[in-house]
Amino acid sequence: MEPGEPGRPLSKAERTRTRIRDTAVRSFRENGFDATTMRRVADEAGVSLGNAYYYFPTKNHLVQELYVEVQEAHRSAVEPRLRASTDLVERLGIVYREGLAQLAPFHEFAPGFLNAMISPTSPLNPLSPESGPAREITVGLFREAVTGARNRLPAEFEARMPDVLWLGHLQLSLYWSYDQSEGQQRTQRLLDQGLRLLKVALPAIRMPFLRAPVRSVLDLVAEVGL
Amino acid sequence: MEPGEPGRPLSKAERTRTRIRDTAVRSFRENGFDATTMRRVADEAGVSLGNAYYYFPTKNHLVQELYVEVQEAHRSAVEPRLRASTDLVERLGIVYREGLAQLAPFHEFAPGFLNAMISPTSPLNPLSPESGPAREITVGLFREAVTGARNRLPAEFEARMPDVLWLGHLQLSLYWSYDQSEGQQRTQRLLDQGLRLLKVALPAIRMPFLRAPVRSVLDLVAEVGL
Repeated sequence: MEPGEPGRPLSKAERTRTRIRDTAVRSFRENGFDATTMRRVADEAGVSLGNAYYYFPTKNHLVQELYVEVQEAHRSAVEPRLRASTDLVERLGIVYREGLAQLAPFHEFAPGFLNAMISPTSPLNPLSPESGPAREITVGLFREAVTGARNRLPAEFEARMPDVLWLGHLQLSLYWSYDQSEGQQRTQRLLDQGLRLLKVALPAIRMPFLRAPVRSVLDLVAEVGL
Repeated sequence: MEPGEPGRPLSKAERTRTRIRDTAVRSFRENGFDATTMRRVADEAGVSLGNAYYYFPTKNHLVQELYVEVQEAHRSAVEPRLRASTDLVERLGIVYREGLAQLAPFHEFAPGFLNAMISPTSPLNPLSPESGPAREITVGLFREAVTGARNRLPAEFEARMPDVLWLGHLQLSLYWSYDQSEGQQRTQRLLDQGLRLLKVALPAIRMPFLRAPVRSVLDLVAEVGL
């Protein structure tokens, strides 16, 4: 039997790793980025600091666990809803709306997370190689939204769309982190109006005089950070 | 005579303040955000640390001096060129291109500055009240670009445009800070292609079915951070 295979009991090491991970993820949710230190996680998980570092060499490794958990919850919320709609813009709305819903508990901690994420050289940057596993989940949801629609885009756009739409999600998250309106309603309105605009504007990208410049801009946007 | 009036000699206090400011701005350019400490600025300006704090209560006050200097250089570069063009998109191109040119010397220090700027609560955030004087210069350049064009936009868009275009400049600067291509050519290409797209797409915002959603999105974008 392989580690983690259903039915096989977890080893002591796996149980310890899981306990540290779960403690850290809960602490990020309850106390934010800055207040969640390796020392605090070790104490609350009932392990020595050295033991915590053995399983997670840096705090950044624990943040990646959070990233993956948030994106897995995003996927679980999105997939049943995608099965109920075949319209491209509606499907994009599902992915964006559920993405914002996952972020909601973190709003008060947004400044601390932003500080840790924004540097182009940070392993916590959503564009970093380290953030690849979490990123792949979300990019995959946008791919599913695009390729599963009955009104599909021309192939030359479709290939770039998942990356560009995911960058749109990061952009919306940045706007949300600055949004001090009640329940971040302003971000919801921006999303609603943006989708409404997309619905009326999208057919235009098939026009010959728009096709080339739109594709160039999408290509360059998708290359951010390369 | 008022302080700073031409012809009036600077007082000792004004000379000291200017020396500290000039030393700090040069150090931000040469050593970046992190390596420019109050201690280092005081030493290099030949004043005591206490004296430096007397004129500039925090390092953030010195960064604001840098912001204003960069934006004044931006204005000096833009204004003569705006007099030579009456086309709206060409005029926007002048403001964006010169804005990127002013940032060029700072590319290697972008991570340190980004970290200091990104938090919604940071006084160094470009949206903060403290950054108002520098922001007003740049928003003013976009206003001049828009209102001085022969092909003006409908009034309902024009009022929002300076703020939205300035946010576009911040967005482009964020892309640039992640751009590792030689001389940040990729950012230049994104700007070129974005302007090309704007040129062909802009007439469409007069179409009745696009007018309302475009205006809603512009309004909401302009309200970021309020």
